[in-house]
Amino acid sequence: MKQGLKIAVIGGGSSYTPELVEGFILHYKELPVRELWLVDIELGQRKLDIVGNLAKRMVEQAGLPIQIYLTTDRRQAIAGADFVSTQIRVGMLEARSRDESIPLKYGVIGQETTGPGGMMKALRTIPVILGICRDMEELAPDAWLLNFTNPAGMVTEAVLKYSTVKSIGLCNAPIGFIKQVSGKYNVAPDRIYAEFVGLNHLHWITRIDVEGEDKLDEMLADTASYSAKNVPAREWNPEFLQSLHALPTYYLKYFYMTDAMLAEQIESFKEGGNRAEVVKRVEKELFELYSDLELKEKPKQLEQRGGAFYSEAAVNLMRSLYNGTNDIQTLNVANRGTLDFLPDDASIEVNCVVTKTGPLPLPLTKIPSMVKGLIHAVKTYEQLAIDAAVTGDRNLAIQALAHHPLIPSVEVAIHLLDEMLEANRDYLPNFFV
Amino acid sequence: MKQGLKIAVIGGGSSYTPELVEGFILHYKELPVRELWLVDIELGQRKLDIVGNLAKRMVEQAGLPIQIYLTTDRRQAIAGADFVSTQIRVGMLEARSRDESIPLKYGVIGQETTGPGGMMKALRTIPVILGICRDMEELAPDAWLLNFTNPAGMVTEAVLKYSTVKSIGLCNAPIGFIKQVSGKYNVAPDRIYAEFVGLNHLHWITRIDVEGEDKLDEMLADTASYSAKNVPAREWNPEFLQSLHALPTYYLKYFYMTDAMLAEQIESFKEGGNRAEVVKRVEKELFELYSDLELKEKPKQLEQRGGAFYSEAAVNLMRSLYNGTNDIQTLNVANRGTLDFLPDDASIEVNCVVTKTGPLPLPLTKIPSMVKGLIHAVKTYEQLAIDAAVTGDRNLAIQALAHHPLIPSVEVAIHLLDEMLEANRDYLPNFFV
Amino acid sequence: MKQGLKIAVIGGGSSYTPELVEGFILHYKELPVRELWLVDIELGQRKLDIVGNLAKRMVEQAGLPIQIYLTTDRRQAIAGADFVSTQIRVGMLEARSRDESIPLKYGVIGQETTGPGGMMKALRTIPVILGICRDMEELAPDAWLLNFTNPAGMVTEAVLKYSTVKSIGLCNAPIGFIKQVSGKYNVAPDRIYAEFVGLNHLHWITRIDVEGEDKLDEMLADTASYSAKNVPAREWNPEFLQSLHALPTYYLKYFYMTDAMLAEQIESFKEGGNRAEVVKRVEKELFELYSDLELKEKPKQLEQRGGAFYSEAAVNLMRSLYNGTNDIQTLNVANRGTLDFLPDDASIEVNCVVTKTGPLPLPLTKIPSMVKGLIHAVKTYEQLAIDAAVTGDRNLAIQALAHHPLIPSVEVAIHLLDEMLEANRDYLPNFFV
Amino acid sequence: MKQGLKIAVIGGGSSYTPELVEGFILHYKELPVRELWLVDIELGQRKLDIVGNLAKRMVEQAGLPIQIYLTTDRRQAIAGADFVSTQIRVGMLEARSRDESIPLKYGVIGQETTGPGGMMKALRTIPVILGICRDMEELAPDAWLLNFTNPAGMVTEAVLKYSTVKSIGLCNAPIGFIKQVSGKYNVAPDRIYAEFVGLNHLHWITRIDVEGEDKLDEMLADTASYSAKNVPAREWNPEFLQSLHALPTYYLKYFYMTDAMLAEQIESFKEGGNRAEVVKRVEKELFELYSDLELKEKPKQLEQRGGAFYSEAAVNLMRSLYNGTNDIQTLNVANRGTLDFLPDDASIEVNCVVTKTGPLPLPLTKIPSMVKGLIHAVKTYEQLAIDAAVTGDRNLAIQALAHHPLIPSVEVAIHLLDEMLEANRDYLPNFFV
Repeated sequence: MKQGLKIAVIGGGSSYTPELVEGFILHYKELPVRELWLVDIELGQRKLDIVGNLAKRMVEQAGLPIQIYLTTDRRQAIAGADFVSTQIRVGMLEARSRDESIPLKYGVIGQETTGPGGMMKALRTIPVILGICRDMEELAPDAWLLNFTNPAGMVTEAVLKYSTVKSIGLCNAPIGFIKQVSGKYNVAPDRIYAEFVGLNHLHWITRIDVEGEDKLDEMLADTASYSAKNVPAREWNPEFLQSLHALPTYYLKYFYMTDAMLAEQIESFKEGGNRAEVVKRVEKELFELYSDLELKEKPKQLEQRGGAFYSEAAVNLMRSLYNGTNDIQTLNVANRGTLDFLPDDASIEVNCVVTKTGPLPLPLTKIPSMVKGLIHAVKTYEQLAIDAAVTGDRNLAIQALAHHPLIPSVEVAIHLLDEMLEANRDYLPNFFV
Repeated sequence: MKQGLKIAVIGGGSSYTPELVEGFILHYKELPVRELWLVDIELGQRKLDIVGNLAKRMVEQAGLPIQIYLTTDRRQAIAGADFVSTQIRVGMLEARSRDESIPLKYGVIGQETTGPGGMMKALRTIPVILGICRDMEELAPDAWLLNFTNPAGMVTEAVLKYSTVKSIGLCNAPIGFIKQVSGKYNVAPDRIYAEFVGLNHLHWITRIDVEGEDKLDEMLADTASYSAKNVPAREWNPEFLQSLHALPTYYLKYFYMTDAMLAEQIESFKEGGNRAEVVKRVEKELFELYSDLELKEKPKQLEQRGGAFYSEAAVNLMRSLYNGTNDIQTLNVANRGTLDFLPDDASIEVNCVVTKTGPLPLPLTKIPSMVKGLIHAVKTYEQLAIDAAVTGDRNLAIQALAHHPLIPSVEVAIHLLDEMLEANRDYLPNFFV
Repeated sequence: MKQGLKIAVIGGGSSYTPELVEGFILHYKELPVRELWLVDIELGQRKLDIVGNLAKRMVEQAGLPIQIYLTTDRRQAIAGADFVSTQIRVGMLEARSRDESIPLKYGVIGQETTGPGGMMKALRTIPVILGICRDMEELAPDAWLLNFTNPAGMVTEAVLKYSTVKSIGLCNAPIGFIKQVSGKYNVAPDRIYAEFVGLNHLHWITRIDVEGEDKLDEMLADTASYSAKNVPAREWNPEFLQSLHALPTYYLKYFYMTDAMLAEQIESFKEGGNRAEVVKRVEKELFELYSDLELKEKPKQLEQRGGAFYSEAAVNLMRSLYNGTNDIQTLNVANRGTLDFLPDDASIEVNCVVTKTGPLPLPLTKIPSMVKGLIHAVKTYEQLAIDAAVTGDRNLAIQALAHHPLIPSVEVAIHLLDEMLEANRDYLPNFFV
Repeated sequence: MKQGLKIAVIGGGSSYTPELVEGFILHYKELPVRELWLVDIELGQRKLDIVGNLAKRMVEQAGLPIQIYLTTDRRQAIAGADFVSTQIRVGMLEARSRDESIPLKYGVIGQETTGPGGMMKALRTIPVILGICRDMEELAPDAWLLNFTNPAGMVTEAVLKYSTVKSIGLCNAPIGFIKQVSGKYNVAPDRIYAEFVGLNHLHWITRIDVEGEDKLDEMLADTASYSAKNVPAREWNPEFLQSLHALPTYYLKYFYMTDAMLAEQIESFKEGGNRAEVVKRVEKELFELYSDLELKEKPKQLEQRGGAFYSEAAVNLMRSLYNGTNDIQTLNVANRGTLDFLPDDASIEVNCVVTKTGPLPLPLTKIPSMVKGLIHAVKTYEQLAIDAAVTGDRNLAIQALAHHPLIPSVEVAIHLLDEMLEANRDYLPNFFV
């Protein structure tokens, strides 16, 4: 390996960036970043400048020789990079707002990553990510693409299928869960082994070893505590969880409590708020903070943003790949037989040993028979939606939606899709030639 | 093989029996039935007598040496049998009526074989069928069990898993489809090759060769004609079918048109009718006819009963097993790798070559990627429901229902299940010890 | 389908051709051949003329409107064909003679299809067959390629992997076995169901139903009778067969009796004879017969040629494909999960239902655990040899041979290969550029 | 976990034991052994006393509170143990001597673990190990069985199939290889990642990362250095290895250089020596050393014994299981899809993450297509031999041997087996009832 690393962050003007920069500073010794390129689109120039300048102040304060570059020239940033990370939002928060609200009109869950909202996000995002991959194939063929962009599972699968770029998908939910257990039992994270079964935003935790002791039953009995900032807190039925003998991620509430979650969304929408609006306000405040020239470190308030630990997950992964530490991390990678009912090239969320040449998924010790059907149903939808995103084929998009477990009929699938396609016309060149 | 065959029909007092007897008469040469035992429970004695006497008149009229025995002693009927067929209805039409109506209260499809109604039927029926299997294991270990009893797929899988009896599940839908194509194109059934993909009451037809010519696209364009007596006729969206490139069985309307089918059921229920009530009236009329001592053949009216071709399917299968004809029939058998995402012991509905030692499933040439998730989701439910039926474990039954694609939440699953269990208490000794 | 069929026979000057012509005459009604093109290379012009003229006399005698064309223009023969069959021998009997003798010098079995001899035949033949496929892809993309050319399993797999042509491999061993059982028990062939497990020239028969009765044990007890003209008759150890509970093809003697078979080959070679020499004499006599202008039918002597039933197998297969008869034939086709330890695109020899759109392999009911390793070892060699044939990569050829179960060491593999490559230089353009 | 561990070593009188004791002393902190039970049979009492007393002196010298117990009462030693390790030799070195010499008479490789010699060792050993398992199932159901007894792969698979005991097989070859690379490149073992593909004593190394750099090609070019004390040093053909692109274990010389290895064995046998005789002499010397009351540590000479690193491997594994360290070790465990052509319950040798609840095998990144057949052929033999050991069925043993790649014919298999069975009569109660 050469002296120091070049890292390109696509969507570098994101409010998450200071956390990432903090990670690079804290772990400089094991991950000697020489150049950090923050890339954004022209519309994001202002944010990029604010965030980029904060990053520079942070590095200077730390006294480290990390060069920070701000650019809208993606190809320049990618050329020769060792790692490329993506944290983009095609269509920005306006698009998210539509993803969340349009489905509600049809009596369907409106959510950023799950259901029709997630599919629209995939249709907008996948072509952009594959464009980044084309640049990487040409300009940085040995680089790793670390993908944080949601829907992270589908985006990762699209790259696995339609690019030669080495890619890993990342989510903050697994690391967040480990942190939670770590706090609850007051032990170091590396003394916890939790087994995640399923897909991104559709996993079940089937094993929780804390210093070698099985704590799953204990955790199942304490479900109220298991929630997340961006999903309304409804309680799990404890008896149901106990016979399931697994802890579902909070996103699974959209499937296991569809009726109540939908009612809550509709109620909340009537009261004028959706998650996108809340995030907009938080972001506005963060950028005000970032603009303060006296600020030279990551502000505390960022932790309330919702995507906690994203950057920690990213820096951990880069460190392990760079050093070949063979430690275990929960990642979105190609299935290759781990879930034996899914194709080899399906992306799944699974514990991996991170070797120098990439992550090796660990076999699952317990797969609850109850959940195979739902995993397969959602994966079927994902496969169709990915192909729809790549081809711009409306019929495929209809098939995807019509086979999504949250959609009540082909009829609804067609009308809902058509309204959403129209509303996203500007971001769907594949569909509107 | 010995001289002539012994056949036991469990549920022999059924209104279907005359068709079966007609089949034995027509095919006596290739299937020399020596003894036909019609078995029923004591409550069914009257019907058994009516149907059994008609059967005797039919055989006499045909001049064939088939001995007909009427009995309520199942073990005597089974002992030494070559074939045992089951056409029972545990709880009779009253239970079916509840299966169809209770789910509607919870906003869920109420149907005899699909969804919670089908599950209740499975919970009542599987223990009885396994009781028959226990008798067969002891008294006729080499006999074939031909199972017509719904839900035929789940019942067959239960036997595969929990008995050593050789068993095949049968449905009239595939043979009915072949007849329809045969009529439409005016060709003999054996010049048609249709490929069925999926499970009982959950299949897609992906290939229709008529005298070697591919007629799938033509059939897909003509979907209005494709319906069935016991499912309300709603039209398929032709564009959807064309991009699916497969013809779904009419039972799939409960999944692809859930909202409209449910609305129709609720409407129809308000108007006082459900399918069970209609069937009750038809049955009453049939038994009046059967009682006429002048009647010596199967009456025309039986064909309107809904289960057309059941008996033809049964006689065909017995003939092929007896003679080892190696012809192709669509049957419910163990998967053994045919659908590579399902376990080997899952029952599937598939074309088979019927050899002397049993059916060999033919590999599928096309499996639409769109439908794998739904097949797996329903099979997951089926597996859980089968285990619930065998164990009487309410938690397993909740898991089954909560993971059924037509159920909107764990909450609904629990309440709906509890009401249905209570309503079926008399027929669920495993659950109410 | 159009009026009548066009059939191209590559290697049409073969001594087998009259049998094929007889088949077309006998089955004209179900397989209305309009044009029969016999193709050969220029070196084979004389044989082609002799055989072709006999064919014309046979057709004229039968009074059928089949046009016979003799040509050395392969492309003209292939253009628009419905079926193309290959029965070629690259390098002619001289090459076979070398295939059989060179290995003996190294203490290795010398045989036309098994071991190093078979590999050399594959290296010579596969590129020629793929050349035929290139023509078919261009000039007859819907035609079926029926391949009789040995090593038929490897040639078929090469076409499956390296061409889009629809291809089926054929061998006379299975049909020959059925004929033998048919004679032994005096029953029609279609009342026999024998299950073949394995590869071409490497199969085990695990089930023999005669009119529905299991005759395997009886046949195993009578092994002396089970032999073939082109493999010296050594007796199987009956106890070994009984615990194997399967009847191996006679080619398996090269693996199960390697020492004795080798000793016999060396002895026989010293006495001046190898199988190639015998065949040369027979062929010479046949062509003298064929030249007789009074001969207007297939001469009896052809049946002693060794390849009995090849043509019957071919005509049967064409008839079933043309008419979509859905009958069962034993063919070499893509594995697709039938032997679950081999890749999907491996060729295997297996019972198939022959549908209009091609053969569907039947699942195997019994796979003796004893034989999986040997099947896999030989298939591994076959895969490597096929790739060596296509690429001309000597290292791959060494890997193939070094991993063949009959080769005692890498050292022998290298030296034996080099001598054989050199001896076949004229027929291996891929290796000697 | 309770205070301190109880460890039972079956075959505790082995000359290896001092190394094991040294390991316990060195790693006492992470692996707090409270009781060490050395068990042997009565015939081994003298050795047990010598070794046991040395062990006591070693522990005393180290000042650690480890209690050492010497016993011939296996059940007492096993009761309540946390770990049971086996290092037994049924029939002692006399039996090994016969394993190595009898095959040579038939022109077959004579080796302790490979071929007929290994099979005889398996037939003698497996029933004894299963007896130990019966004791463990009853007296220490939660204990881990660490099996060092050869043939370790087959013994481990027998336990997987015929016992509920949690078992792991261990070999010193993988750790030895890592040590060798560690020495060659002067890096710590944990900075090396080598991927092992295959079975115990039948693996290929397909990847060697040293501090993240791929050194496979470099190692392949330096094959002369890759050998082992107990296999005569013949050189690999470098071109062959390079096109194989994997480093075979030295045991693979028996397959890749059969002719030369056999010649060498016969030569060496004529000269009066076989490996067993050499080992006998070494053992004699070691026990003389051990008897010296002044000796209070593991003597240097033990390292020349051949089984170097066995004990290090054992202590490493116990530490990781006890502490749940999730580090990577190369172990013999159930396949469960890792080699997708072998059954789930086949034992394979593979890198594993050692979690608290057991090893999780890591997926293989490269499986050379060349070696699948040989792996499967040897595994087929192993499966049959295991079943023969358990049942005492001579026919199964014949099938095992007849399908072993090193056996030239069924005839040789039968005669060789019969002589070996007879020679081992005293140790084969299953065969000689």
